[in-house]
This record gives sequence, structure tokens and C-alpha cells, in this order.
Amino acid sequence: MSLESFENLRLELRRGSLVLAALATLRAEQYGYTLRKTLVEQGLEIDEGTLYPLLRRLESQGLLVSEWREENKRKKRFYRTSQSGVEVLRQLLAEWQTIDTAIQHIMKESTNGND
Amino acid sequence: MSLESFENLRLELRRGSLVLAALATLRAEQYGYTLRKTLVEQGLEIDEGTLYPLLRRLESQGLLVSEWREENKRKKRFYRTSQSGVEVLRQLLAEWQTIDTAIQHIMKESTNGND
Repeated sequence: MSLESFENLRLELRRGSLVLAALATLRAEQYGYTLRKTLVEQGLEIDEGTLYPLLRRLESQGLLVSEWREENKRKKRFYRTSQSGVEVLRQLLAEWQTIDTAIQHIMKESTNGND
Repeated sequence: MSLESFENLRLELRRGSLVLAALATLRAEQYGYTLRKTLVEQGLEIDEGTLYPLLRRLESQGLLVSEWREENKRKKRFYRTSQSGVEVLRQLLAEWQTIDTAIQHIMKESTNGND
């Protein structure tokens, strides 16, 4: 398979989980730059061109709230997970857990049944 | 947020992981019907209209191999993860593990820092 196709599978796997990671991280207010730094430090590489549209989308869906404020003499847009976002986070985490349990189980099953 | 938007987030979270689950399950050969049954039993609900195109896509990418064979007097298409599919599975699992660790860590961090 081409490197490009593999990269697409990897991105597909990551895409949905970024919403989860962003909602979880923003339970403590942050602005875009520090949020991105936090995600990257956790191994969740994401470029600004992906993160900022995602934040705007989540805000338009009512899952984040944002506010412009001055910090160190610069205006920054601070984001925080809304109450509705916390609820969605809770449900997505449950979903994540289901998927993770299924995958661990399948890996165990087919290792036993094979080779 | 609307139920439809939430459903989209849930599907987005699930989409990438289905490739992982399919490649893992098909290390032991199965045909579409039993594969779907296995996934559903694990909590990974997927309809035929999603599963069959996915299988064809993975085969065209060289990650699955398939073969028509007769079983109980009916011709069925059997799928199995190819050698290249097993390698991609290994890499996607590592990616999955990275994301899972990150999410667990973020959940712990922000719970401690908040409320």
C-alpha cells in the first residue's frame, strides 16, 4: 500500500479522537497555542490549519465557548468546554471505551485462534 | 447540540477504528456476514452498506485478500487480512495505543486541575 494511503488511515483513526482530546483538555480554559502544545506533548500532533477550524466548528455546535481577552498585552481567544460539551465528552468517552474494549478483545481472540 | 451532530461525532470516532477492527478480525478468514456478526457482538454496530464498501476499499488497497468459495451450497466471498494488512494493523494499533494513552492522561490531568 502507498505511504499516502497509510497516512490517510492513520489520520482517519486520529480525526475522531481529536474532538475527544480537545473537549477533555479544554475543561480547563486555554487559548489555541497552548492547547496545541498540550496535544502535541501528549503525542497528538495536529497542525494549526486543522486545529483552528476544529475549534470553530466545536464552538458553532455549542460544545465550546470562547472569549477574547488580553494577556501579556496581546489579545487572545480563550476556549473552554461548555456544559453541553462536557456532556458530549462523557458520551464520546463511553463510546471510545466500547471501541477500545472491542479492539483489545478481537486482538486477543484472533491471536488465540491463529498462527 | 442536535442529535444529528452528536451522531456525526460518534460516527467520526468510530470510522477509523472500524478499519482496525476489520483487519484484526480478518486475520482469521471470514465472509461478510460472519464478520459483521463478530463486530456487532463486540459492540461495533455497522450496517452492510458501510461494511461491504469498506471491505472492497481495503482489498483494493492490498490490505485484504478475498476469494469466492462455495459453502453450504452457496457461493460466498471470503476475506482475509493480507501480509501487508497485518503490517498496517500493527502500525495502526501502535497509533491507537498512543491516542488512548493521551486521552487517559488528559482526562486524569484536567480532572486533577479542575473542579
